[in-house]
Amino acid sequence: MPTFTPPTIRFGGDYNPDQWPRDVWDDDVRLMNRASVTTVSLPIFSWAKLEPEPGVFNFGWLDDVFATMEAGSIRIDLATATASPPPWMATLFPDTLPVDINGVRLGVGSRQQYSPSSSTFRKLAIRLVRQLADRYGSHPAVESWHISNEYGCHVPMSYDAESVEAFRAWLKNKYATIDALNDAWGTAFWSQAYGDFDQVGAPAAMPTFPNPTQLIDWERFSSDALLGLFLAEKAVIREITPDIPITTNFMGFFRDADYWQWAPHMDYVSDDLYPDPADSDHYIMAAATRDLMRSLGGGRPWILMEQSTSAVNWRPRNAPKPAGMNRAHSLQAVARGADGILYFQWRQAKAGAEKFHASMVPHGGEDTRIFREVTALGSELAAISPNVIGRKVPARVGIVFDWDSWRSLDQEAQPTRIDYVATVLSWYRPLLRRGITVDFVQADGNLSGYDLVIAPVVQVASEAALQGWAQFVAGGGTLLATYQSGILNENLHAYLGGYLGPLRSTMGIRIEEFAPLAAPYDQRHPDPAASTRFPVPGTRIEGQLAGEAGLWQEIVLADDADVVARFADGFAAGQPAVTRRAAGDGGAAWYVATQPSNDLIDSIMARLLDDAGVTTGLFDEPTDQAEAVRRGDMLFVINHADHERDLMVAGQARRLPAYGVEVSALSAGA
Amino acid sequence: MPTFTPPTIRFGGDYNPDQWPRDVWDDDVRLMNRASVTTVSLPIFSWAKLEPEPGVFNFGWLDDVFATMEAGSIRIDLATATASPPPWMATLFPDTLPVDINGVRLGVGSRQQYSPSSSTFRKLAIRLVRQLADRYGSHPAVESWHISNEYGCHVPMSYDAESVEAFRAWLKNKYATIDALNDAWGTAFWSQAYGDFDQVGAPAAMPTFPNPTQLIDWERFSSDALLGLFLAEKAVIREITPDIPITTNFMGFFRDADYWQWAPHMDYVSDDLYPDPADSDHYIMAAATRDLMRSLGGGRPWILMEQSTSAVNWRPRNAPKPAGMNRAHSLQAVARGADGILYFQWRQAKAGAEKFHASMVPHGGEDTRIFREVTALGSELAAISPNVIGRKVPARVGIVFDWDSWRSLDQEAQPTRIDYVATVLSWYRPLLRRGITVDFVQADGNLSGYDLVIAPVVQVASEAALQGWAQFVAGGGTLLATYQSGILNENLHAYLGGYLGPLRSTMGIRIEEFAPLAAPYDQRHPDPAASTRFPVPGTRIEGQLAGEAGLWQEIVLADDADVVARFADGFAAGQPAVTRRAAGDGGAAWYVATQPSNDLIDSIMARLLDDAGVTTGLFDEPTDQAEAVRRGDMLFVINHADHERDLMVAGQARRLPAYGVEVSALSAGA
Amino acid sequence: MPTFTPPTIRFGGDYNPDQWPRDVWDDDVRLMNRASVTTVSLPIFSWAKLEPEPGVFNFGWLDDVFATMEAGSIRIDLATATASPPPWMATLFPDTLPVDINGVRLGVGSRQQYSPSSSTFRKLAIRLVRQLADRYGSHPAVESWHISNEYGCHVPMSYDAESVEAFRAWLKNKYATIDALNDAWGTAFWSQAYGDFDQVGAPAAMPTFPNPTQLIDWERFSSDALLGLFLAEKAVIREITPDIPITTNFMGFFRDADYWQWAPHMDYVSDDLYPDPADSDHYIMAAATRDLMRSLGGGRPWILMEQSTSAVNWRPRNAPKPAGMNRAHSLQAVARGADGILYFQWRQAKAGAEKFHASMVPHGGEDTRIFREVTALGSELAAISPNVIGRKVPARVGIVFDWDSWRSLDQEAQPTRIDYVATVLSWYRPLLRRGITVDFVQADGNLSGYDLVIAPVVQVASEAALQGWAQFVAGGGTLLATYQSGILNENLHAYLGGYLGPLRSTMGIRIEEFAPLAAPYDQRHPDPAASTRFPVPGTRIEGQLAGEAGLWQEIVLADDADVVARFADGFAAGQPAVTRRAAGDGGAAWYVATQPSNDLIDSIMARLLDDAGVTTGLFDEPTDQAEAVRRGDMLFVINHADHERDLMVAGQARRLPAYGVEVSALSAGA
Repeated sequence: MPTFTPPTIRFGGDYNPDQWPRDVWDDDVRLMNRASVTTVSLPIFSWAKLEPEPGVFNFGWLDDVFATMEAGSIRIDLATATASPPPWMATLFPDTLPVDINGVRLGVGSRQQYSPSSSTFRKLAIRLVRQLADRYGSHPAVESWHISNEYGCHVPMSYDAESVEAFRAWLKNKYATIDALNDAWGTAFWSQAYGDFDQVGAPAAMPTFPNPTQLIDWERFSSDALLGLFLAEKAVIREITPDIPITTNFMGFFRDADYWQWAPHMDYVSDDLYPDPADSDHYIMAAATRDLMRSLGGGRPWILMEQSTSAVNWRPRNAPKPAGMNRAHSLQAVARGADGILYFQWRQAKAGAEKFHASMVPHGGEDTRIFREVTALGSELAAISPNVIGRKVPARVGIVFDWDSWRSLDQEAQPTRIDYVATVLSWYRPLLRRGITVDFVQADGNLSGYDLVIAPVVQVASEAALQGWAQFVAGGGTLLATYQSGILNENLHAYLGGYLGPLRSTMGIRIEEFAPLAAPYDQRHPDPAASTRFPVPGTRIEGQLAGEAGLWQEIVLADDADVVARFADGFAAGQPAVTRRAAGDGGAAWYVATQPSNDLIDSIMARLLDDAGVTTGLFDEPTDQAEAVRRGDMLFVINHADHERDLMVAGQARRLPAYGVEVSALSAGA
Repeated sequence: MPTFTPPTIRFGGDYNPDQWPRDVWDDDVRLMNRASVTTVSLPIFSWAKLEPEPGVFNFGWLDDVFATMEAGSIRIDLATATASPPPWMATLFPDTLPVDINGVRLGVGSRQQYSPSSSTFRKLAIRLVRQLADRYGSHPAVESWHISNEYGCHVPMSYDAESVEAFRAWLKNKYATIDALNDAWGTAFWSQAYGDFDQVGAPAAMPTFPNPTQLIDWERFSSDALLGLFLAEKAVIREITPDIPITTNFMGFFRDADYWQWAPHMDYVSDDLYPDPADSDHYIMAAATRDLMRSLGGGRPWILMEQSTSAVNWRPRNAPKPAGMNRAHSLQAVARGADGILYFQWRQAKAGAEKFHASMVPHGGEDTRIFREVTALGSELAAISPNVIGRKVPARVGIVFDWDSWRSLDQEAQPTRIDYVATVLSWYRPLLRRGITVDFVQADGNLSGYDLVIAPVVQVASEAALQGWAQFVAGGGTLLATYQSGILNENLHAYLGGYLGPLRSTMGIRIEEFAPLAAPYDQRHPDPAASTRFPVPGTRIEGQLAGEAGLWQEIVLADDADVVARFADGFAAGQPAVTRRAAGDGGAAWYVATQPSNDLIDSIMARLLDDAGVTTGLFDEPTDQAEAVRRGDMLFVINHADHERDLMVAGQARRLPAYGVEVSALSAGA
Repeated sequence: MPTFTPPTIRFGGDYNPDQWPRDVWDDDVRLMNRASVTTVSLPIFSWAKLEPEPGVFNFGWLDDVFATMEAGSIRIDLATATASPPPWMATLFPDTLPVDINGVRLGVGSRQQYSPSSSTFRKLAIRLVRQLADRYGSHPAVESWHISNEYGCHVPMSYDAESVEAFRAWLKNKYATIDALNDAWGTAFWSQAYGDFDQVGAPAAMPTFPNPTQLIDWERFSSDALLGLFLAEKAVIREITPDIPITTNFMGFFRDADYWQWAPHMDYVSDDLYPDPADSDHYIMAAATRDLMRSLGGGRPWILMEQSTSAVNWRPRNAPKPAGMNRAHSLQAVARGADGILYFQWRQAKAGAEKFHASMVPHGGEDTRIFREVTALGSELAAISPNVIGRKVPARVGIVFDWDSWRSLDQEAQPTRIDYVATVLSWYRPLLRRGITVDFVQADGNLSGYDLVIAPVVQVASEAALQGWAQFVAGGGTLLATYQSGILNENLHAYLGGYLGPLRSTMGIRIEEFAPLAAPYDQRHPDPAASTRFPVPGTRIEGQLAGEAGLWQEIVLADDADVVARFADGFAAGQPAVTRRAAGDGGAAWYVATQPSNDLIDSIMARLLDDAGVTTGLFDEPTDQAEAVRRGDMLFVINHADHERDLMVAGQARRLPAYGVEVSALSAGA
């Protein structure tokens, strides 16, 4: 597999010259050079211009763009232009259009109007890709392939007839016999037994809760259908240009594509991320997303393929980034393993649905704060490249991130509403504020490299995964699992007799009853807002660990575990809330039966780190609105606060301005 | 009509052995016997297993179940298995699938995917029922028939073409001529006059408010269409097994089926009820529902066909039942006339959409709090049976409950939003807290057995009904009607000249104007939450009765009535709020022109009971979170509070633990 | 064009005699005469009765109505009865039915179920109109034509196939070539380039944000399609009855019809308005709407075609009008240029979807508060007519009102959510409370008659419009433009280089960045309510003007303007918030870069009025809940408060009761 090793940290963005007159292109090159731009991604949304009629290709203008870029020493991340089909496709082949869950066929006028399972769309896309690869595959400006764009962003699944057929084929391949499907789906329930695969449909509009396993299989299939499109394009490209690395841009914590399945097919991982500047906690989610991207790639460098220089345009209210924040976001990504910082987009559009989305060159032109910051950042990235590029980011703590659990917890007919990503982040945060770097791991992944593994609400876990966790503890590891972990197997069948399956003896507990907390409300007029806040207040735990918690209680039978804390009130008053069982050679298995407050998670984390022998992190004291990360031999310290302050890192005070970042060689003591 | 007289209070639940391996069945019998289970309902959701292909029946496994149950002395409530058709029906006969108000056809994957008016579905259902009746109708384990399940729970109506045809036939039968329909529907309004029945449709998607009479007729038709399915199955069953009693399980206050129309066709009434443990007032709604079920059956014993031992799985957050609450709910039902306590379901499913729904045997197995409580309750019910079973529950107070008023108040284009059931319960509550038992009565029902009748927001009332109320007063009864009673006749035409129709002279008032209260809001950004809270604050009344009220004011002209209280403020300041007119031989007609606060309703109730000569109830003082009910010669006292306390009943203090229940022989003085 | 000059202020309402027995009609005439009714509108919703079968007309009953009215000296506003087609049209011509954005065809049962672009509907409507004009065009009772009713109220646009064809024709007519359309729509973005007009569709359901220009063109087309229906009927009527004036009733601030395009086709403007009595600020919106109607007609008198005597029936909660409020609303309209006060409707319906809507004769009959107020008002209007009718309402201040800006701001993918009408009213309010009358003006209208023009959030403005504003300032006018004015041209393309286009030099500023304010929120659980409140707090400005503001900040470069105030905090801290540039001969160009609080707008307005030389208004001090307006030589003073108070007008205290109105000759000093 070709590896991607840019000479310096890649810097640039999506480039749409076809939206501008020819004379603007030369000005673009001038400004790109001024900004130290290395790379542009194109032509992501030009299918309609490249193929104005079916089979009639128009490459002249793109030849000109390539020549212009080459002349300006700008490298090209060559997009396959299949992210959005031209209008004629809908006219000639209406069956390529996606259909929503209510049977509404989505039409032309925005983008991505294709069904992931449309064979016609796939055939036409591949024809275009072959043309592009043949024509530009050996062009010296090309440094990488960018297949399609943000797969599934708007249309992660389609309920059209061809998709249903493809789902049946996928199911036949998975289950072989209809009896196996009936067993896995539990169709004895509610008279759902199928006589034949032909009777199986998508979980479209139906009278009430869909079969949970049908639904999760549909979501797995839909992720696979998109991945299949990627692989079909990749096969053509690999055949024609075997040495050029290939990627497609992920979208961070995106539920509809299981990136653990996708990542092995990437020559390098790339990601688009748009943290909301109006959310003062946005850096937590952003840091975790960077770590996820690095983890998906097995620790290899990845590329930040899209971010915004300032405001986006698709939130209800789109806050700008204050001075410095764009740099802080960019260096955060580099610190956590990125070897490229790119943007949507180079020049702010003057028309269309994204005309209010910030870009590298704003409506106001080059004499603007935004462009000044862009040029400074381009220069800085080039400068730090030698000490950073290709370097690893070490981590001794793993957090399980599992798409199936996310999908299952988001289903209806659950004990309560659990926000999966927010819950994962609640366990990530105390590590971040200590300056301890985290890898995300698969539920059934190899845990041998970690001292501490945290499994938050991993509701769905196979027997193999749970055995892996047990072995991790037996081997001396420290494991923490929360409530709603190990409840269902991969077919969403409950583990009987106390849940937890093969992990039960390692934990030394059984779970007898669930007791989700419900905010008091008037049954006649329930306030839906009150019942979905996170975490729902409230309960307290007491014992060796004490504090506030919420959302959940349950009845835990601690047959063979130490009770570290008990519920102080409520349904489970007096029952175990936190348990610990020593196991193996220095191993420990922790269980937490509620959603602790942030403060309480901090306290629990201190105990865990102690158990795991993970010494204090880069921060001397837990610190909010800040980061300290090691990459290779470099230390990145980031102040996410809107004011200057001192950060104590490795025994040393560092004064950083608002949104300031310090990149320095790691001293021996840290 | 066969009557249902179980030897002891029926105890058990839905049983789905087809979801489990054969060896579990023997364990089931063992545990059923341990829990004193008398009865299981089956095979409610087994159509797909019983008839895996059209016309091919597979009864062997069910023969085995019957034999197993018989061997274990468990009786069978034989379900017709027509609650959810097999997937092949949708494949072969897609027209059987229901269509929603926007024309979306609902598919396979959950349950109940049939149009109530589908003749194909009906034909296939009847074929199955005949098979079941022929095969098991004389089986000694069978004690009753359970037709379908929760009619209309998810699909109370369908907008498919066959349903529209059936609606037209129903309308032709009701109105005979299109002119009569035009008159009844008031189609002179908005150019809606129909030239022929063929032009009439369902009230599906349309530009704005549907014709109100079209809509209520559609809802009446849809309830009748479901009832027609029931009657079709019943006819086959009655023919083959004339001596086995027949029921279908109701769903409490369920708007989409007018149970007054259904109940006469039941050999005994049965009900499913799932009060929310997170709502501290849930016992009020539950008590009222029990009383409704008894009233629907004309006072005869009924069966609680489904409840949960603890949490359900279909709320956003599903709270468990604390220790004792399941017993309290069960004995509440018995106290109010139930001769059976059953559950959904016997053994908690390990897969499917209800795997998180509590059951008699939970995921954790028999060594669990839930199963221990189940066994204790089974034993207790058997013990009290001799003194309870078949006994009557006396009541001297009636509350009108009217489906047409509910439907009308829920329409758009009303003066304000009125929560019908909440309003009815606001008048039920002060009687419950006094320990006075209530019957629900039909608007045009026989009131002769009551001393006091309350008519809360009976917006729709025929002339006959209003004449009946007038006669009740003339005969010495005490009647209270609230605002929005007697406003519209059965075609939803307003009574002109002051509303109330034939009741006007009895009340001695005319109503000149409505003045719904609107919470102050900013018109540019109305807060929908603020405008739907119940009751909307606020107004005050003053006079002989004084206190807080809300939601409604109006201008009442008290031509021939005493003004008991007047509005203290607002649009109707100084105008009558409560009036009373003595009539007949000790009769009294009360009118309340607002929604009083709970405290104020309590005060009004004291006056009413005095007028009606209903002496103090079983409680010495009005008591919250508690019940005292007489059934036959037994007294049931229930503490719904989460703590121990003393309850004063009939002059005697009884100490009850949290959720405690005392069942005792009624002392002479009570 | 025939002008409409009623002898006295028109008084009456919609009349639906076909909903009542014949004997009621005579009573109607008796009561109309008692109430000084001059005019009734009919037969608005009688198509089904007039043409019970296609082509079969039934006019006998209407002949009788005409004769009855004539005998009672009641004049007729003759409606064309095409507002709602008969049910048979849907049966015979289902393609006439409208289709919603999701492809759902809307059916019969309410009203207005026609697609604006249906040629069949149009043909049938015109056939009916010709019949009516031929039969009644010369009837002596007819004084005016009332075409259709509230065009677009429920179905402003339809997504059926015929509408899409009509849209394509409209686009061909506008753009001539597909290249011109591609340029205007910016289809280079997102691969949207069309090869042919046949590939263009309506902006129906699609994966994400529609092309903004496609969307606004669709909205312009849909407004034109409705207007086309009006013009088709008008042509027939004008041909047959050239001397009878023609109108259709507008609906105030109604987004879906650009009344600037419609108004020139009206012989006189008429309007329907239903302010919400529960909103204490409703009088502001109402006053502005009256001014808009007068402005649409170029200052000519207009008609209030519909209002309610008290409550309506289509809000969630429908508050009644307290005694006097109906009179206050009516005289407010007269003060602001109305020569007619009519109601929906004469007699309250006893059935149908509007049976709870107040009317001139309520359910309670003539012995009611409402009818007594109606008769008093009819008499009063007749009395004041000689001094009022036909008189002008002078105004020296103009506020730009622009449908395209409204449409654009309401699109998705905007910087923030801006409530267009609320923002306009925030600038109208301080003038109202001073007793200064306002005209609304078109963005590219003639401003020469004004001293002060305010342009609030006129996001869309052509170069011509912006040049017109610049010329207005150059000519000595005072102009204020707010944030988000002059951002996009008529194709929604951004003005590059600092926005404002040709107005930039007049303002002396450039706008570099937008910084919408976002209420703090938890990203994991954003509170949508909190993010849409108006105005979002908060920021402060300081300098010559100081106070609270919200919703918006931006970076303004004041190259050639005085900085009147700066932002005190936030992203734009220290940057200009209010600028002023003197220009021309006493002209001044103001810019406000935020949404000031009401108090702050008041302060800004004082400065503006001073600049513009507009002396103090009719009120001595700014006064809330009140109005003072001059029409001709008459002064109208209105107390909108719910209590008696003194109002200081032109140096004189006037004591007015709650909702009181004083109409008097204007003294020389005012």
